[in-house]
Amino acid sequence: MSGDERAMRAALCRVLEPGEKAHLDVVCKLGARSTFEELMAGRAPSGISEVVARKLRHVNGAAELEAAASLGIRLVIPGDDEWPSQLDDLEHVEPLFGRGGLPIGLWAKGPMRLDDIDPAVAIVGSRASTSYGEETARDLAADAGRAGMTVVSGAAYGIDAFAHRGALAAGTPTVAVLACGLDRAYPDRNRDLIAHLATTHVVISESPHGNAPQRIRFLARNRIIAALSRGTVVVEAEARSGALNSATWTSELSRPVMAVPGPVTSATSVGTHDLVRDKGASLITRGADMCNLLGRSGEHLQAVVRIAPRERDLLDPREQRMLESVPVTRPAATESISDNAGVHPAEAKRLLLRLSDRGFVVGTPTGWVQTPRAQT
Amino acid sequence: MSGDERAMRAALCRVLEPGEKAHLDVVCKLGARSTFEELMAGRAPSGISEVVARKLRHVNGAAELEAAASLGIRLVIPGDDEWPSQLDDLEHVEPLFGRGGLPIGLWAKGPMRLDDIDPAVAIVGSRASTSYGEETARDLAADAGRAGMTVVSGAAYGIDAFAHRGALAAGTPTVAVLACGLDRAYPDRNRDLIAHLATTHVVISESPHGNAPQRIRFLARNRIIAALSRGTVVVEAEARSGALNSATWTSELSRPVMAVPGPVTSATSVGTHDLVRDKGASLITRGADMCNLLGRSGEHLQAVVRIAPRERDLLDPREQRMLESVPVTRPAATESISDNAGVHPAEAKRLLLRLSDRGFVVGTPTGWVQTPRAQT
Repeated sequence: MSGDERAMRAALCRVLEPGEKAHLDVVCKLGARSTFEELMAGRAPSGISEVVARKLRHVNGAAELEAAASLGIRLVIPGDDEWPSQLDDLEHVEPLFGRGGLPIGLWAKGPMRLDDIDPAVAIVGSRASTSYGEETARDLAADAGRAGMTVVSGAAYGIDAFAHRGALAAGTPTVAVLACGLDRAYPDRNRDLIAHLATTHVVISESPHGNAPQRIRFLARNRIIAALSRGTVVVEAEARSGALNSATWTSELSRPVMAVPGPVTSATSVGTHDLVRDKGASLITRGADMCNLLGRSGEHLQAVVRIAPRERDLLDPREQRMLESVPVTRPAATESISDNAGVHPAEAKRLLLRLSDRGFVVGTPTGWVQTPRAQT
Repeated sequence: MSGDERAMRAALCRVLEPGEKAHLDVVCKLGARSTFEELMAGRAPSGISEVVARKLRHVNGAAELEAAASLGIRLVIPGDDEWPSQLDDLEHVEPLFGRGGLPIGLWAKGPMRLDDIDPAVAIVGSRASTSYGEETARDLAADAGRAGMTVVSGAAYGIDAFAHRGALAAGTPTVAVLACGLDRAYPDRNRDLIAHLATTHVVISESPHGNAPQRIRFLARNRIIAALSRGTVVVEAEARSGALNSATWTSELSRPVMAVPGPVTSATSVGTHDLVRDKGASLITRGADMCNLLGRSGEHLQAVVRIAPRERDLLDPREQRMLESVPVTRPAATESISDNAGVHPAEAKRLLLRLSDRGFVVGTPTGWVQTPRAQT
């Protein structure tokens, strides 16, 4: 990409609202150069207001890039080697609240290349999280990391922060997408976390430096989180959580939405239950579920607890059937047991002796009874 | 039905293991009378062993009925007015562990007629329940009762007992299906509950009086619980819970299986999560979900908490868009806001004044800022 193109895109980033679908569609259709030139000539292409053209004349793209660079921020644009091509699906996604479209570019701060983010999973959720949700987010993020995936989230309080921390604790990559310029940290209390991510991995925004975290920018930001990732896990969400918006984008992108259940009495699980019940999200309870749904091998994850077959399950069906008919507490006579089992007494005796040999029943003066072994 | 037929069925109940699919299929095919006569003649029909024929000669059906009656127990058989016809689907269901088939009859104790059980829902679950599960079972049972449904369960410790208690607390019918004869109470600690159900509603068993609660009888019993009900709710279940067997029967009967989620860290929710994730069960979180799935109106249930639309959601899209661009904390000038919103300053001013009239923004010496009203 020519520096010229990058500077034009930097200038457009300054005057076009991030994620404004109508604007981004114009840039996609005409290209950044033509859009830029039309606007500079005072001809606002259909879909872009004259206000934008007026503003653009006061913006210097090269200076924007320079100012960003002085803050450690680079602009990655479509066509760059570093461009994360999994974003390209955004071009064809229907708008939500007027948001949508392929970003003009992504502002990035940190050593990790954006084309190294894939394979990734978004792990998001409520800011008002419970410790249950926080621990679950941390564990899932660590499992995602161990399965070779980048954890993408929004650096918000609560679930987002614990998702980042889980990946960091596992020593695996994690990326924050912000709704404000990368010279800012929102939320302020996560300033240290965001700074750490910018030092060790990368933080990303569609907004140029200086942009404030306005509410509508969170809606646009959530589509970047979804589009960078192969699927989205919502760990906890209230009925009206912003995390559900990330799930909607994921679903619009035809990628898997996963939700973690919780107590039905917990307000922060209402949204995740709604996703499963009404929106076709997959219920997941552990890292292996997430990996399965994303087509990643979860073999190296800590062993999933499987129920070992009980010894009695290994008996042949007739032996099992006979064992079922032997009392657990008070011994019963062979005749009574054979009656119950509906088998001939001689056959019953043969089976009982075999079960006795294998330690599942024991003969007593008053008849046969199961051993503790039969009950484990 | 002639007393003769009932007596023959009573005698067959004594010699045939409850729920033994091979036996019950013979009774269905030949009829109780022919099966009885063949066996009495020493000709064991294919599928029934000679041991059974030998035993039958020592049984007196009329005496069985008389002994049962002295214990307050009646035998309800197919063709009786009281026969719960929803059981008839069992005739065509594939066996599980050799269990299956239409019962020869149902032993019943209590004033409630078996043909009054429908519409019913089974609410079952772990014996090793948590208080979370117990409260949920109780609430769902009360909701089922208020929606006009009978609650069917197994009188076991834990979830079953709380399901019965929830219906009793709501003053609505509930029915226990036991795996032993109705002269017995299993588990013993629920003796009072079982006695109360037999006094106020009805307890049911496929086993004649005197039969012990053997393990295989629980598998057979679970099919009766499933078949009496329009669907089954599993509230809590470990990975290997018997409650999952009830769910399997329900599924074989092509009726809805519902599961209540819980914390992913809870062993007693592993089974319910498995049902949703792997077995196509519907996740439910409240009585209204259960009613919807069973086609019952849940309108009279306590109002489901719905999120009221926020006042700002009622603004027109341009006003909403403008409001999004007004800062929450530090006021901004009209020009800055109009830039952000991408609208002409004159239009911005008009919209801001309208928002101000409606109490969503307030003008200050340094510009416009959102009011608390905009944030509720």
